[in-house]
Amino acid sequence: MKVKAPCSSANLGVGFDVFGLCLEEPYDIIEVKKIDEGIEIEGKDIPLNPKENVAGVVAEKMLKDFNIESGVKIKIKKGIKGGSGLGSSAASAAGTAFAINELFNLKLSKLKLVDYASYGELIASGAKHADNVAPAIYGGFTIVNYNPLNVLHIDVDFNVIVAIPNVKIETKKAREIIPKEVSLKDMVHNLGRATGMIYALFNNDLELFGKYMMEDKIVEPYRGKLIPHYFEVKEKLKNLAYGVCISGSGPSILVIPKEEFQDEIIDILSSYYDKIIKTRVGKGCELYKA
Amino acid sequence: MKVKAPCSSANLGVGFDVFGLCLEEPYDIIEVKKIDEGIEIEGKDIPLNPKENVAGVVAEKMLKDFNIESGVKIKIKKGIKGGSGLGSSAASAAGTAFAINELFNLKLSKLKLVDYASYGELIASGAKHADNVAPAIYGGFTIVNYNPLNVLHIDVDFNVIVAIPNVKIETKKAREIIPKEVSLKDMVHNLGRATGMIYALFNNDLELFGKYMMEDKIVEPYRGKLIPHYFEVKEKLKNLAYGVCISGSGPSILVIPKEEFQDEIIDILSSYYDKIIKTRVGKGCELYKA
Repeated sequence: MKVKAPCSSANLGVGFDVFGLCLEEPYDIIEVKKIDEGIEIEGKDIPLNPKENVAGVVAEKMLKDFNIESGVKIKIKKGIKGGSGLGSSAASAAGTAFAINELFNLKLSKLKLVDYASYGELIASGAKHADNVAPAIYGGFTIVNYNPLNVLHIDVDFNVIVAIPNVKIETKKAREIIPKEVSLKDMVHNLGRATGMIYALFNNDLELFGKYMMEDKIVEPYRGKLIPHYFEVKEKLKNLAYGVCISGSGPSILVIPKEEFQDEIIDILSSYYDKIIKTRVGKGCELYKA
Repeated sequence: MKVKAPCSSANLGVGFDVFGLCLEEPYDIIEVKKIDEGIEIEGKDIPLNPKENVAGVVAEKMLKDFNIESGVKIKIKKGIKGGSGLGSSAASAAGTAFAINELFNLKLSKLKLVDYASYGELIASGAKHADNVAPAIYGGFTIVNYNPLNVLHIDVDFNVIVAIPNVKIETKKAREIIPKEVSLKDMVHNLGRATGMIYALFNNDLELFGKYMMEDKIVEPYRGKLIPHYFEVKEKLKNLAYGVCISGSGPSILVIPKEEFQDEIIDILSSYYDKIIKTRVGKGCELYKA
């Protein structure tokens, strides 16, 4: 059972901890095989102890919950760089949940797969958050709510350009620098923008979607400082792109380009950063066809 | 020029200062006539000095901006009780802006009318807010953003029951009791619910819309205490209605009933409060036909 597990962008500016967007590339390839017993992990530059590996944690929980007596061997080929703000751990967790569901014919709902995959996030970042695993499972754009967990899915399709600056930002640190209290005024501002983004998606208004995405007053002012040249680049792109924001906790930068300026945007990003990926909104985990 | 200016509910739970809903009833009737000069106000139990009357302030600003040399006489028949959380001042302001636009054939956009009407709110509550004037002008459901002012309109239609408890709450006081700072955690919670409500509206999912509307962690815990029996009534109605929330800054209570339980809901509300209104979502200001 071989699965393509896509990367994703959480937050999208004003949608902190709520919004997520699945991207077509980069992606991990997760291969899961039945073995007699236990959980074995195989892969380069990842923890091989199943209890310290997001995929291992997800697999263990699922095998246990469904009283599966055999074990699994999970082979992970990372395409997504860890600590880049592209939901690397979420992709591996989501891909594993998706693969085990298929392999053992568990017929779980997508929501249930998100729930299982988010157990992986618990060890990756200390919180069972689902803003990356949700888009990795559902594809498109997602809204996540908790207590109880609920994923609302919007099927969207547009081009995306991602720049990956060559610095590593730990989610934990990126979280610590955000103030724990927000002014009521800024909350109202962000709430108006975020609800406007959902309105824009249903009206196919990418211009409004991107405009409001860029107007975060709560998180970006702090996190933007951790990313070399972020505000400068955002300023340069603002008339060429519908929207520019930090992908997840960064340092990756998500750009929604205007069709006619794609090449120009890539040129500008390339003058600042080494790694630029031209992609589009993705469809979520799927069986891998070589 | 005689205009029917409807009441409205701002906030809708988690959409504090952003969401608004126009209701068909109650409404004010605003009659505007050309006179030679000056602004005259006529009506019962309202300030007759045009500088202290929301309609007067709106009229003065519009006459000045469009270099209109004649004056106007504004006759206001209040159907909406002031200080009840039903956008009483907003209705008079919106109705006046609407009437003057028609009377002098100014051909202003709805957004521009909202902008003018919100000058009335400035003297009514000290802030040029638009979360009541927007639904009063556009009808249906509205999302308001500022800097720049923008109104997003969603055409919806469902039944509404309003209870008006016999206490008066001043918007200023209702605003003072809300903490000026919000925890990041509660902000994320409300943002997820509010964006989910917009998703629900576009999916005609009144059940989800009402469920998330009821889960405000930021404002209702404080304002609910100002309204006699609010939490008790909310609890009693939660399985009979899609949603229950405070209308604006209260004390009015907005209920979105499940069709089959409308009578039961009215019975319960009537056992607590004197004034109950059975209405539906409204279409915004319109010419009055007797």
